[in-house]
Amino acid sequence: MKLTILIHCPDQSGIIRAVTTFIYEQDGNVVYLDQHVDKQAGVFFMRLECEFELEQSLDNFSREFEKKLAFNFQMDWDIYSDDYRPRMALFVSKYKHCLYDLLTRHSAGELQVDIPIVLSNHPDLEPIANQFAIPYYHIPVTKETKEGAEEKQLQLLKEHQVDFIVLARYMQIVSPTIINAFPQKIINIHHSFLPAFAGAKPYHAAFERGVKIIGATSHYVTEELDAGPIIEQDVARVSHSHSIQDLIAKGRDLERLVLSRAVHFHVARKTIVYNNKTVVFS
Amino acid sequence: MKLTILIHCPDQSGIIRAVTTFIYEQDGNVVYLDQHVDKQAGVFFMRLECEFELEQSLDNFSREFEKKLAFNFQMDWDIYSDDYRPRMALFVSKYKHCLYDLLTRHSAGELQVDIPIVLSNHPDLEPIANQFAIPYYHIPVTKETKEGAEEKQLQLLKEHQVDFIVLARYMQIVSPTIINAFPQKIINIHHSFLPAFAGAKPYHAAFERGVKIIGATSHYVTEELDAGPIIEQDVARVSHSHSIQDLIAKGRDLERLVLSRAVHFHVARKTIVYNNKTVVFS
Amino acid sequence: MKLTILIHCPDQSGIIRAVTTFIYEQDGNVVYLDQHVDKQAGVFFMRLECEFELEQSLDNFSREFEKKLAFNFQMDWDIYSDDYRPRMALFVSKYKHCLYDLLTRHSAGELQVDIPIVLSNHPDLEPIANQFAIPYYHIPVTKETKEGAEEKQLQLLKEHQVDFIVLARYMQIVSPTIINAFPQKIINIHHSFLPAFAGAKPYHAAFERGVKIIGATSHYVTEELDAGPIIEQDVARVSHSHSIQDLIAKGRDLERLVLSRAVHFHVARKTIVYNNKTVVFS
Amino acid sequence: MKLTILIHCPDQSGIIRAVTTFIYEQDGNVVYLDQHVDKQAGVFFMRLECEFELEQSLDNFSREFEKKLAFNFQMDWDIYSDDYRPRMALFVSKYKHCLYDLLTRHSAGELQVDIPIVLSNHPDLEPIANQFAIPYYHIPVTKETKEGAEEKQLQLLKEHQVDFIVLARYMQIVSPTIINAFPQKIINIHHSFLPAFAGAKPYHAAFERGVKIIGATSHYVTEELDAGPIIEQDVARVSHSHSIQDLIAKGRDLERLVLSRAVHFHVARKTIVYNNKTVVFS
Repeated sequence: MKLTILIHCPDQSGIIRAVTTFIYEQDGNVVYLDQHVDKQAGVFFMRLECEFELEQSLDNFSREFEKKLAFNFQMDWDIYSDDYRPRMALFVSKYKHCLYDLLTRHSAGELQVDIPIVLSNHPDLEPIANQFAIPYYHIPVTKETKEGAEEKQLQLLKEHQVDFIVLARYMQIVSPTIINAFPQKIINIHHSFLPAFAGAKPYHAAFERGVKIIGATSHYVTEELDAGPIIEQDVARVSHSHSIQDLIAKGRDLERLVLSRAVHFHVARKTIVYNNKTVVFS
Repeated sequence: MKLTILIHCPDQSGIIRAVTTFIYEQDGNVVYLDQHVDKQAGVFFMRLECEFELEQSLDNFSREFEKKLAFNFQMDWDIYSDDYRPRMALFVSKYKHCLYDLLTRHSAGELQVDIPIVLSNHPDLEPIANQFAIPYYHIPVTKETKEGAEEKQLQLLKEHQVDFIVLARYMQIVSPTIINAFPQKIINIHHSFLPAFAGAKPYHAAFERGVKIIGATSHYVTEELDAGPIIEQDVARVSHSHSIQDLIAKGRDLERLVLSRAVHFHVARKTIVYNNKTVVFS
Repeated sequence: MKLTILIHCPDQSGIIRAVTTFIYEQDGNVVYLDQHVDKQAGVFFMRLECEFELEQSLDNFSREFEKKLAFNFQMDWDIYSDDYRPRMALFVSKYKHCLYDLLTRHSAGELQVDIPIVLSNHPDLEPIANQFAIPYYHIPVTKETKEGAEEKQLQLLKEHQVDFIVLARYMQIVSPTIINAFPQKIINIHHSFLPAFAGAKPYHAAFERGVKIIGATSHYVTEELDAGPIIEQDVARVSHSHSIQDLIAKGRDLERLVLSRAVHFHVARKTIVYNNKTVVFS
Repeated sequence: MKLTILIHCPDQSGIIRAVTTFIYEQDGNVVYLDQHVDKQAGVFFMRLECEFELEQSLDNFSREFEKKLAFNFQMDWDIYSDDYRPRMALFVSKYKHCLYDLLTRHSAGELQVDIPIVLSNHPDLEPIANQFAIPYYHIPVTKETKEGAEEKQLQLLKEHQVDFIVLARYMQIVSPTIINAFPQKIINIHHSFLPAFAGAKPYHAAFERGVKIIGATSHYVTEELDAGPIIEQDVARVSHSHSIQDLIAKGRDLERLVLSRAVHFHVARKTIVYNNKTVVFS
């Protein structure tokens, strides 16, 4: 059995020693350890992977962890077993590239998740979901129907036991109802180098400003638009010779890469959110 | 003799043919030609380098160019002779890295300019100017003395026949008096990926926002702070593990590179400003 | 009608003027022009796009071009009409990622080609071709059957009027028979930063050498293995913490990007091959 | 007092626990810990920074470390105190840019080293050393005088208590005599993306091959030319439009950056050499 443990707590002396000693006493072997201290905030972060020869009950282990370790150090913690395959829902609109990218990665065995559903406010991308045999639900969203639509979405997410949501160029604002049901579990891709060009039409704004580099940003969704904790960013060089259409085309490659990396980090339990920022372990 | 010609004018048919025919009739040979059309704005841009076996009078050539070519096509144009070495003034404050970078590049023969003066509101960097035998003028600037200080600056710039100014981390806002005397001839380095984090303390702001990439931007100075036409940008990857001090250290390398590239583009007559954006020819 | 013209010829005075004058006399309008001179080799390269209001016969235009222009300047030239959509064959083996990437880009309208066939020495990827409704031919290749297999391949390529071939991680060496039938029309993706790590297992070799950056290279296929003219390269940073498996996973993203960019350059008629190198116009 | 500890040893269970417990028992506090396991080689690597409120004798600490910890785990280890400022010698030839870069960084307080001497086989750069008040020794090297020259070099290095050597574009091959006196303590900058273009004139070779990206590599010097453990690499995009001179100019910026980063990693005790590769901790 292999467990991944994520911890953050007030910084203090002796944490690593205490945790590694605990793992040792549980007959485990630490195979990866990375830690970070935010000295400004006085917070300690750690990610461990440990292997156990004997089968362990995850519940049991977690209870002991809380009692003997986490309580003393006032830890926020999560423990994940490698046995479990997280379940990811995709929200899409009309853009094909991110949906195609995630489905082909999944199909090629690059993404260790199950994808029980694709949800959309438009019917357009249903053929793509069909190509990959993923159920597609078309739930139209208008100003008037938004509340009801989100209830339907929530119900589907619950039915399909979804663990986290990826907004793969879903062009709608997700309401607090859904955000609160999936705290730090909704990953968005924004097509700019945030915080520059938040909001609508970032490629148009980038063209207007005459930037020499464009970007894409993947972040956890919070109530404030495009202001959640950034997971991953990347950029591409552009010049005066690129039209808005060129920026959009170049941007598609950035969006694909940045979103898939952010999903990978999330799935591999490499992210901790703190103070509206992320620690992303290597 | 070698001339570099920069042109922009309303887009229309036949410009390249007309210009290359004109050069031919003047017994010149085009050795480089790059052009660009901004289709949204309907503007044509071109940069040519042409060589002449016979000595030409630049004045004569320019007069013919205006009469036979520029007038018809409503061209904005500049013609530069490679004989002339532009004169660059450096404005600095207390940061050493950009000053050192430009002076060592100059001293190593990488920058085809003369540097008649370094101006500063502080005395701190005088020893560095001395190391490279460049006259250093310390002109203190306070709220009360700003007007007088800028008059002194202007006078020195005039005396030393300065062609363009580089703000090498000069931490003062330059007033319209100077900007208007050197339109599109003042190059600033801003230590962020503009338009993100304009204004003061961009590394602190980047740290606060938790970005995964930081940047630096070189731009021509206009009256609106950090909003002038961008000449060059570059970025570096950062992570949660970098403190503000780390960002500042990483940023120094970006600032050096981006500023020196922008100066190089300007000196090589590769930039045209239009609509608060730049065309930077390759 | 829109034509793209690619030219290279001995460098000499007056070429641009002659070409633009010719286009003008044919009632055409130059909408893009880029040129390059290789001063070492004394060769002039140019790419033009020009539009014609009146319909032109491509044959006619080409004949005039040859007679009035190309002959005098000893030009090698190609003229392409935007009307024609090039036909691309994909050769694959067992790796899914490049095949998926090209098929999804094609399906999303990002690639202006037709894809009449996918050829493979293995049956494994047939389901993917089926997903996208592209005919898939499984032609096994062994040492003994190679000659016959290539004849079958050539016949299929001919039947389907294929213009160029993309080796999307096709793990076989293509023989001179096919190379000579498609000169400078076979695009390969090699999973290293050439010329480093040519040949088999480049990620293993990169790991062994301890490089801090890995790469991928797309090139036209010539008889010498991995030594053809490079079209595009890109790189990604790695560290001691990456295993060979990590390099392979990171490399997949590079391979996808670099191959799709090379295909794009080829399809947009932006490449000229000369001296075993490429000019790739912007 | 602050100590930095570098360890590598056969991988086995319990190392982190043992080390952190040892630090705890010495009244120390771990403020940074990074570890890595090379699973292929079965080797464990670790870097720790720990602070001690009470003054410690480094000798004492090291003795205890060896006795109670290192012996059992068969550790190779180094312990460095932050009190000590390493002493760096620069070897140069005729190129100015890397020498200028390191001296200005040192002068601006960016490099935590002392620079007691600059050695060169040419007199050309003496004025630069003088600008920064660093003693410069001109020791001509010819085939015949090489042995004697290296003896002089070794003597100077000894006299000035040099800890490590930086070959800042020193265009001579360093002989085993010096390499063995400074094992894994000589840092070279090679102006290519190794292993591509090892040896002489790499920019010429890169131009010839038509690569689209050039690079620079910093490595520890071993007896085999350009084949030592790589510390850092970086790259820059080039195109057909760049001449060899352009590659050389672009390359200077790469060389400056890559060499200064490698020096920084070495000085900050972030590198461990193993199997002709480096672990470079973050």
